[in-house]
Amino acid sequence: MARFQVAAQHPYGPSVGQLVDRLAALPGIGRKSAERLAQHLLGCDEAEALALAQAIQDVRHNVKHCPNCFNLTEDAECEICRDSRRDPQVVCVVEQPKDLLVIEATGVFQGQYHVLGGRISPLSGVGPDDLNIAALVRRVRKQGVREIVMGTNPTLEGDGTALYISNLLADDNVRITRLARGIASGSVLEFANREMLADAMKGRQAF
Amino acid sequence: MARFQVAAQHPYGPSVGQLVDRLAALPGIGRKSAERLAQHLLGCDEAEALALAQAIQDVRHNVKHCPNCFNLTEDAECEICRDSRRDPQVVCVVEQPKDLLVIEATGVFQGQYHVLGGRISPLSGVGPDDLNIAALVRRVRKQGVREIVMGTNPTLEGDGTALYISNLLADDNVRITRLARGIASGSVLEFANREMLADAMKGRQAF
Repeated sequence: MARFQVAAQHPYGPSVGQLVDRLAALPGIGRKSAERLAQHLLGCDEAEALALAQAIQDVRHNVKHCPNCFNLTEDAECEICRDSRRDPQVVCVVEQPKDLLVIEATGVFQGQYHVLGGRISPLSGVGPDDLNIAALVRRVRKQGVREIVMGTNPTLEGDGTALYISNLLADDNVRITRLARGIASGSVLEFANREMLADAMKGRQAF
Repeated sequence: MARFQVAAQHPYGPSVGQLVDRLAALPGIGRKSAERLAQHLLGCDEAEALALAQAIQDVRHNVKHCPNCFNLTEDAECEICRDSRRDPQVVCVVEQPKDLLVIEATGVFQGQYHVLGGRISPLSGVGPDDLNIAALVRRVRKQGVREIVMGTNPTLEGDGTALYISNLLADDNVRITRLARGIASGSVLEFANREMLADAMKGRQAF
């Protein structure tokens, strides 16, 4: 199948090779799936294929970052920041918009969010100035935030980012918490790793 | 996750809901993958996302059916029909362009192809007139074809389509063959089904 590797050599011509290349660049789509999707886009109704192209263009033109929390939105301000029932004094800090979505899906958080746009990662050349950290500090002071819930990923870099932010806010009168760690609900102790069990033991709660 | 089922209710707004719907309509892409792909298309470089949209539009505008064999091509005639080293007197009949590609990838066929655009399927309302069958008959007579290799799928409908075509050409001086059936190279006899083994026994060859 070596002939399918280079765009210009696709048997249908360069446009199809280009499309296969573009599809294969998407996460989780391999060369074979890309070829299959391209076949579908060639064989389906023209309106269906062009509607997908239009939908991609529309999201890139219409969806922006919320100027307050940096969540994604099509409006001037995001749905959550606009919602007057949400408590603006409790802010959950997350790395990416998708993290916000999974926390929001639980339905247990009633405050606002702040999307950093990543995490501090010296190896990838991402420093504090590349993230929405200064905006968070301004927001804390302006909104009179009384609690920051760190919802960064439980990784070395996620924890490091949370620690950096909590140091920045050390002199502000704001309580800083983080998501609880322990054993996952519905999991089996036998397969829990050492860090998970150690977290669960250290954070043990009254029954 | 019920809130993600209806486009208008996507938390980022209707454009993202629309994109997720369009992606989930692709074969082999479920709701969760569609949501993940939409997140990627929102988060990647704008140029990368718009290039994918452009590639979809380009294939629909540039790729046409070859007027001779109905394969897909960006040129006036497809690569295979243009190739003077291919034998125009031996034509392999396939249902879809993708079937042509897999046969072509074996590298053992030196003739031309004819893409029917489907198979006769009364239950789906597809009759002989909906396929490129009349064009095949004209081509057989015009090109002086001496062999038709039936490369339709080894299913009831694929076999029926091949039988219909061979009846149409009964009075023409053309040899009609079909792809050999038997056990798959590299497979294990123990897991071969009855039809496969029966085909292999009936078609046994000198060693």
